Amino acid sequence: MEKLEEYYCYNGTQTVWSHYSSTLNCNMKFAIYIPEQATQTRLPVLYWLSGLTCTEQNFITKSGFQRYASENNIIVVAPDTSPRGENVPDNDSYDLGQGAGFYVNASQKPWNVNYHMYDYILEELPKLVENNFPVTDKKSISGHSMGGHGALVLALRNPDIYTSVSAFAPIVSPSQVEWGKKAFSHYLGQDEKNWELYDSVKLILNGYKADNIFIDQGLADSFYKTQLHTYLLEDACNSKQVPITIRYHNNYDHSYYFISTFIEDHIRYHAEKLRE
Amino acid sequence: MEKLEEYYCYNGTQTVWSHYSSTLNCNMKFAIYIPEQATQTRLPVLYWLSGLTCTEQNFITKSGFQRYASENNIIVVAPDTSPRGENVPDNDSYDLGQGAGFYVNASQKPWNVNYHMYDYILEELPKLVENNFPVTDKKSISGHSMGGHGALVLALRNPDIYTSVSAFAPIVSPSQVEWGKKAFSHYLGQDEKNWELYDSVKLILNGYKADNIFIDQGLADSFYKTQLHTYLLEDACNSKQVPITIRYHNNYDHSYYFISTFIEDHIRYHAEKLRE
Repeated sequence: MEKLEEYYCYNGTQTVWSHYSSTLNCNMKFAIYIPEQATQTRLPVLYWLSGLTCTEQNFITKSGFQRYASENNIIVVAPDTSPRGENVPDNDSYDLGQGAGFYVNASQKPWNVNYHMYDYILEELPKLVENNFPVTDKKSISGHSMGGHGALVLALRNPDIYTSVSAFAPIVSPSQVEWGKKAFSHYLGQDEKNWELYDSVKLILNGYKADNIFIDQGLADSFYKTQLHTYLLEDACNSKQVPITIRYHNNYDHSYYFISTFIEDHIRYHAEKLRE
Repeated sequence: MEKLEEYYCYNGTQTVWSHYSSTLNCNMKFAIYIPEQATQTRLPVLYWLSGLTCTEQNFITKSGFQRYASENNIIVVAPDTSPRGENVPDNDSYDLGQGAGFYVNASQKPWNVNYHMYDYILEELPKLVENNFPVTDKKSISGHSMGGHGALVLALRNPDIYTSVSAFAPIVSPSQVEWGKKAFSHYLGQDEKNWELYDSVKLILNGYKADNIFIDQGLADSFYKTQLHTYLLEDACNSKQVPITIRYHNNYDHSYYFISTFIEDHIRYHAEKLRE
């Protein structure tokens, strides 16, 4: 592991690291914020998954989460959104290939060599974090857009691993929208049956559960009606009696200005669950 | 004026505008955050001046100031840091030309056609803001690094215009450090007598005053000992009995992680003075 960046922020340290990922077969970057309290005691971790086109930088430079992580004594890990590098397959479009990993384990060529973000987030990254930083084994997960999809899927499929889950403007049912159909047909192939394990709405309808799901969605979000379809998750949760809290916000869009406004509520939500 | 960007944030609006500046003889961009309370009453304005290489974007995307502007009911205007465009003189180095206006009125060719940031910030921009947004005529000023220098110079020379002044890691005496010597010799010529009006330490020593000056400086700032020399301003203020509050912070550097940690204190400081 190599430390690439280090900043002091709200009495804690924001660092960025590079390491070789054997799951993704390439070098990967991730960011980690460690509050001051971690000098005295191990702290639980919130994993944050970013959206399309993002890297490990977006959340740490634009959301302002450090204040709330510091106040609530949780460590926050923000990985890059896909494998990267000259030898990693890519595509000219912003919604496929590098920067668009969709948090799946790809089965199709050429993606299947590197695109295993599901396993990376679930297994390799936490192991690395637990071996190198003052963390407990308690973890929660959140994310934005494509990262919201990733957080929901990881939490629903691994309820014993993640204490709580939340999302900003998640792609709740990639199988049913253009972003997801494009990505999944490339990464997972044409058989839509194989998509169901990466679709939070399908997971819920197939009996997967969570103690609670917390979502913020802006109503001025230009992707809300075309790619996000939040109501599909609301309907699925209601039909399966899975507790869900969705807050719809007038005027707010898909940007980090929206995230920065409400990130405090998400950090507090997870911190409370992680303390239980 | 053309609106380029608009986001809802902390119940207010963050917008970015383009306009033709007759002071700078080019198109300019500026950002303005307007809290919700401005729908009912006019609010005072804090002008924020950014540092070398920055545009109007850095402060609005990275500092997280919107929360505090919203809570304290002040409007915040963040202009670009220099004239811009194909027809505006530039230089290959990051600390001269576009992105490095140093908030002076240049007297030397080729800079003197466009580089009048002092007049732009003092006169043209406030007039534009007052004609188009729900502001009072009360204003304060703050900034970072080169922008901290700009804020100090503008406030010291115009105590009737600016209610209060603060800065993060300001270049307190550009005449005495490499950044300033390079910029001033190009913009203002070799006669250092002409630099004094753009040097906060020289201004203080020449009898200019402020009600109070509030500065935050990180002690892990890599420019602290080479370009900033905060103690020069401290000494000048003490010798001339100008009230100054300087907070030195262990571990903090020159980045926006530093600014985001302490921006609340600056917003509250100005809001309190502006309410008096």
